[in-house]
Amino acid sequence: MNFHTRKWIKPEDLNPNGTLFGGSLLRWIDEEAAIYAIVQLDHRHIVTKYMSEINFVSSARQGDIIELGIAATRFGTTSLTMRCEVRNKITRRSILRIDKIVFVSMGEDGRPRPHGKTEVTYIKDRFADGAEDAE
Amino acid sequence: MNFHTRKWIKPEDLNPNGTLFGGSLLRWIDEEAAIYAIVQLDHRHIVTKYMSEINFVSSARQGDIIELGIAATRFGTTSLTMRCEVRNKITRRSILRIDKIVFVSMGEDGRPRPHGKTEVTYIKDRFADGAEDAE
Amino acid sequence: MNFHTRKWIKPEDLNPNGTLFGGSLLRWIDEEAAIYAIVQLDHRHIVTKYMSEINFVSSARQGDIIELGIAATRFGTTSLTMRCEVRNKITRRSILRIDKIVFVSMGEDGRPRPHGKTEVTYIKDRFADGAEDAE
Amino acid sequence: MNFHTRKWIKPEDLNPNGTLFGGSLLRWIDEEAAIYAIVQLDHRHIVTKYMSEINFVSSARQGDIIELGIAATRFGTTSLTMRCEVRNKITRRSILRIDKIVFVSMGEDGRPRPHGKTEVTYIKDRFADGAEDAE
Amino acid sequence: MNFHTRKWIKPEDLNPNGTLFGGSLLRWIDEEAAIYAIVQLDHRHIVTKYMSEINFVSSARQGDIIELGIAATRFGTTSLTMRCEVRNKITRRSILRIDKIVFVSMGEDGRPRPHGKTEVTYIKDRFADGAEDAE
Amino acid sequence: MNFHTRKWIKPEDLNPNGTLFGGSLLRWIDEEAAIYAIVQLDHRHIVTKYMSEINFVSSARQGDIIELGIAATRFGTTSLTMRCEVRNKITRRSILRIDKIVFVSMGEDGRPRPHGKTEVTYIKDRFADGAEDAE
Repeated sequence: MNFHTRKWIKPEDLNPNGTLFGGSLLRWIDEEAAIYAIVQLDHRHIVTKYMSEINFVSSARQGDIIELGIAATRFGTTSLTMRCEVRNKITRRSILRIDKIVFVSMGEDGRPRPHGKTEVTYIKDRFADGAEDAE
Repeated sequence: MNFHTRKWIKPEDLNPNGTLFGGSLLRWIDEEAAIYAIVQLDHRHIVTKYMSEINFVSSARQGDIIELGIAATRFGTTSLTMRCEVRNKITRRSILRIDKIVFVSMGEDGRPRPHGKTEVTYIKDRFADGAEDAE
Repeated sequence: MNFHTRKWIKPEDLNPNGTLFGGSLLRWIDEEAAIYAIVQLDHRHIVTKYMSEINFVSSARQGDIIELGIAATRFGTTSLTMRCEVRNKITRRSILRIDKIVFVSMGEDGRPRPHGKTEVTYIKDRFADGAEDAE
Repeated sequence: MNFHTRKWIKPEDLNPNGTLFGGSLLRWIDEEAAIYAIVQLDHRHIVTKYMSEINFVSSARQGDIIELGIAATRFGTTSLTMRCEVRNKITRRSILRIDKIVFVSMGEDGRPRPHGKTEVTYIKDRFADGAEDAE
Repeated sequence: MNFHTRKWIKPEDLNPNGTLFGGSLLRWIDEEAAIYAIVQLDHRHIVTKYMSEINFVSSARQGDIIELGIAATRFGTTSLTMRCEVRNKITRRSILRIDKIVFVSMGEDGRPRPHGKTEVTYIKDRFADGAEDAE
Repeated sequence: MNFHTRKWIKPEDLNPNGTLFGGSLLRWIDEEAAIYAIVQLDHRHIVTKYMSEINFVSSARQGDIIELGIAATRFGTTSLTMRCEVRNKITRRSILRIDKIVFVSMGEDGRPRPHGKTEVTYIKDRFADGAEDAE
């Protein structure tokens, strides 16, 4: 699993108890999964269909940096199944895990549309620069 | 199940495809469940611990009015389990269902704290006014 | 008057003095009144026309739960007049009162349009489940 | 009356009918009045106490530029009364008027505190540069 | 340079270190410059093209009032160059300076369009009311 | 340069002309650079000090996916200099470039504090999984 998008926890992201508001975290995950699905399916019109159970393993505090990881686990005819993990970027401590997030590719008629993809697309040239830095 | 909080779907709530952004909906649900838990447990420091699978049954569009319903299903020693349904207020069509949302009551030491509640608290006097209107 | 929508006061809702920002509260009230008007008038295109004087009776703090109540007071030919009260859900202390909020039903031509309603629509079946719980 | 703060109406400010959401406008007004009161009373801890009736004269659309004007009308012992007008910056058409917005100066004890001001403070040196430009 | 738009620094504007988030400040500046350009060029379709180096001179804290100043420095054929200064409204201490912000006037075809303006438009009648007050 | 954080352009991110609001983009960049600086300097209290000129090369539209790249270019005694590029994730077209973004490490006394770092920290174990996927 690769971790891409990061967030710096600001006052606007907190619940009244001073920790990361779970609802904000779910909002970020839905956006990150949508982005992953659009790139893999090479199709802009996709919808969130299903999420499996969500375990809020630990929380995050103001000033923490978290990173969101998504990985494809199954390509259906019209769907893409992914798993998700969110963790603290510095300590690597897990914050949340979702085993299955399913997005569906939609046609112009508003119905599911076969996407024709069967495996993850790799981007080779990213590694031409040599090792990735810590950031 | 009673439906309380409503939302009027505005442009700021949409995904790029012009329908309700799933992440915004999850954010609203987490807040509504937190409110329900705080009222029932009579304790302000609670955290989201778990959500069971989420089915996005249908979507909503700009200008739609949706309402969020929460009901308690189980009182644990330190936890409260609820179920959630979101529906279109006018058509009553279901938008999303979550069977289990678990919040935990926390003590000052940051650990789960027994809440001492075993059943739903009813507010009798709300009915003194007679029938509730459509809104 | 029935109280439906609730809010959990988060850091993002505070003014720099650490109490609920009055502007955020007014924003919530305008949305709740719009929802009430749309449901009662059974028409989506409505506009805020007038608010009578607003008394900010008391404030709210981070972590408080507030609830917004709206009730219809007069059905005009093209307008609906409502009154509003916002209170702390736990203590029942009043936070704000507005005696008159007037919304007008608009036609496709951008002019006021008779809405044909003369009284509050009741939703009877909500009571089939028995007493409403505290939440 | 001087008009200072301006807003460029963006999609995030619209109601579902595509015009400026009244609640957003009220939020901006409350902030602008707070700023005016803080500057005139030379005191940071002030609260919104009262607004007289609000007439929504006309609306604004995406891309419009509006400007907010505030003027002091009365200095009480602990309060400041202002009037407000919002208008379209280009057409000068009035959008909203509020005759009285009352803020109260608060002491450390959370009670109203005499502010000692009796008239508007002028800033003379702003005019040293000559005429103000259209912007 | 005239200072128009003001902001009251609220919790939602802070970075995790409790000072004004630089990104929020840049967002406000871009909007203020866009407004200035639209008014001076008398044309709604403009785009940010360039900003010269930005010096973050000092910061701002919760409860501070800041004001944004923009002034035109050069009218090109399709562009307008402005300079910007942001300062604390009470102390007049400078917070940020940008020497050049360039906006370009766009035509319906999505290409730069000559705007026909060569100098700042003054609004004379603003001074008919006499001296401007401190707010 | 590695590209990490991505954004899916939603209605809330648009200017009134329907393209990505430059101010929103600058807000995202400031957060991403702050995250990069915190990780590299291993210190949470950092402030934005300077940005060199910003070229808005092209725009983005609703539904586009953009990615933000940051790379360290110089480690000063108390500062870190980075460069930034934002591009469309699908087309790889450049959207914006900033050659120098300078953050400074701050001590508890509110003054610059030597950070003791002289080069980019690499995270080797990220490559244990083999090639990174396209997402």
